[in-house]
Amino acid sequence: MTPFDIAIGTPLASLSTPRPVIDEDRLASNIARVQTYMDAQGLAFRPHIKTHKIPALAKAQIEAGARGINCQKITEAEIFADAGFQDILITFNILGTEKLERLAALNERIDDLKVVADSLVTIEGLSSHFSGRKPLSVLVECDTGGGRCGVQTPDEALTLAEAIHGKSGLRFVGLLTYPKAHTEAAVEQFFAATLTLLSERGIPCPIVSNGGTPSLFSAHLVPSATEHRAGTYIYNDRSMVGAGHCSLDDCAMHILATVVSRPTPDRAVLDAGSKALTSDLLGFNDYGLILDYPLAVITSLSEEHAVVDLKQIAGKRPEIGEKIRIVPNHTCVVSNLFDRMVFHRNGLVTRVEEVAARGLVW
Amino acid sequence: MTPFDIAIGTPLASLSTPRPVIDEDRLASNIARVQTYMDAQGLAFRPHIKTHKIPALAKAQIEAGARGINCQKITEAEIFADAGFQDILITFNILGTEKLERLAALNERIDDLKVVADSLVTIEGLSSHFSGRKPLSVLVECDTGGGRCGVQTPDEALTLAEAIHGKSGLRFVGLLTYPKAHTEAAVEQFFAATLTLLSERGIPCPIVSNGGTPSLFSAHLVPSATEHRAGTYIYNDRSMVGAGHCSLDDCAMHILATVVSRPTPDRAVLDAGSKALTSDLLGFNDYGLILDYPLAVITSLSEEHAVVDLKQIAGKRPEIGEKIRIVPNHTCVVSNLFDRMVFHRNGLVTRVEEVAARGLVW
Repeated sequence: MTPFDIAIGTPLASLSTPRPVIDEDRLASNIARVQTYMDAQGLAFRPHIKTHKIPALAKAQIEAGARGINCQKITEAEIFADAGFQDILITFNILGTEKLERLAALNERIDDLKVVADSLVTIEGLSSHFSGRKPLSVLVECDTGGGRCGVQTPDEALTLAEAIHGKSGLRFVGLLTYPKAHTEAAVEQFFAATLTLLSERGIPCPIVSNGGTPSLFSAHLVPSATEHRAGTYIYNDRSMVGAGHCSLDDCAMHILATVVSRPTPDRAVLDAGSKALTSDLLGFNDYGLILDYPLAVITSLSEEHAVVDLKQIAGKRPEIGEKIRIVPNHTCVVSNLFDRMVFHRNGLVTRVEEVAARGLVW
Repeated sequence: MTPFDIAIGTPLASLSTPRPVIDEDRLASNIARVQTYMDAQGLAFRPHIKTHKIPALAKAQIEAGARGINCQKITEAEIFADAGFQDILITFNILGTEKLERLAALNERIDDLKVVADSLVTIEGLSSHFSGRKPLSVLVECDTGGGRCGVQTPDEALTLAEAIHGKSGLRFVGLLTYPKAHTEAAVEQFFAATLTLLSERGIPCPIVSNGGTPSLFSAHLVPSATEHRAGTYIYNDRSMVGAGHCSLDDCAMHILATVVSRPTPDRAVLDAGSKALTSDLLGFNDYGLILDYPLAVITSLSEEHAVVDLKQIAGKRPEIGEKIRIVPNHTCVVSNLFDRMVFHRNGLVTRVEEVAARGLVW
């Protein structure tokens, strides 16, 4: 039996560890809850597949009402195009001949491929690989305070929109931001000002794309937006609980781990290290929440071990051989470590999905 | 052309990014330098394959003079057993029926399988799956100050050695520690005291295994040790430069990345995020060293982006489309993210190896 030969109905308790597992009911509920909210707001919803990298889950998101998907790299988009997805937005500045050639090939294969640009260099590169026969749709990425990519002002956004608008191989289709959480007023201000400038120039802007899970349920505070993108909401994680997006009971992913050592009364060691949990802290001081011992603190990780401080536990402490469940700080990076994902309902395995877009270089 | 169809002789500059690459000459030099030191000290050397997870590299380590290999999980050991390795030490407490059954199957396949134990629970589990026909070799893991697994005192080590010694399916073969770097005196003290206790009981202890790359060249300060284990030394990384083990010129792994955005004069954004570099800090405040711009600071990572602060660069700053090289903080976790590894000599690709033991669950 390989680690991937897991029969339907297998109890989670009999799986070897470390092992991330997904609760089907919470997964379905997370998908429904967010889609219902987006529908109520009249916002198109575009799930980011980076969180799960599994076509079957994106299909469930589309069936619930999502309008298309969001990828972060061409190789991810190719996998999802292979799986039949026709409306794909890649939220990345695509640069370099090899990537541009693959982007052009992808554009021939699907109905509606969109990318972003935040510089004239990116626009020139895109323009050189697309023609008026089947132009590429491009959104201008705006930095509304997130501090990553994006133009800094509405004037710069206008300049790039005009540049895209002037290229026969490109089609300006909108504005996009990856905002800092809970800054809806700043996002709205940036979008509204840019829309005014575009309108003055007579440049249509059909898509205004906002994003992020942490303050997703405040998406209605950005009335200029026509769509919202989010990834983490499908699994949720400790950082989303911390951001107020959800409760611990909404976290669909748990890492199953085993206590492999109890060297001292105050120390336990688990078999889930940075190659299972990752070192992502996302504002926490420790590496995940042990659901069964919430007062235990994962103080450090090595690659295959977690060191846990038990000092605060007054009652029963975990014993060697005991299996525990961890809510990871950040699900999206955990998905990226595992070739297969196990799903369950009430602790019995329902399916195993290949993490099809994992490990792709770019 | 897929990302993995890379022809021999391809210039690195034409590879799409992000992409870790390994310098063949530095790799060979790192292997030779450490083996030469170990040979001079009369220490058996056991490379840890967790750093590369590639059988061809372990073969080069054995050909240079290493005595056997070190794995961290059964699934890694299985891959290396498939590749012909006969002397494998798994430095992990193996617990649970499924793992113990696979461990027993592995023991039938290779000449010399060894594991560690730091508790009676682990020893009882091992004992229940092995018999006197082909006993399993077991070392007692000692915590000499590393603060992870391991018995806390020489007396406890003796107790476990006696327990192993008394089982027909197990063979006590030695002591092992994963020490805190630069604490050779404490390691020697623990080992020497335990050896005295074992000798008084007439229990032979053929192997005394010390480990770690950071203070590897001080291994001779632990005269009780018979072997040393190390992984990171084969690639080296920024943390090993920081620990004084090597220089930047000994770092064989670089992450090639592209500047994809320059939103402000002081900010660059790269296409290598936490899914290429990992979030491992290992004592640093930033996420890797940009070799071409050593004054640039990678201040934050998202999954596919690195945000770089250029404030300290007085001269030429990186431009959009420019490719740069990053020395990662920690090579071992980078290896675990990529399905294939590209090797080069003087900037021309020499080979592409599958990271055969990557992504295995346990």
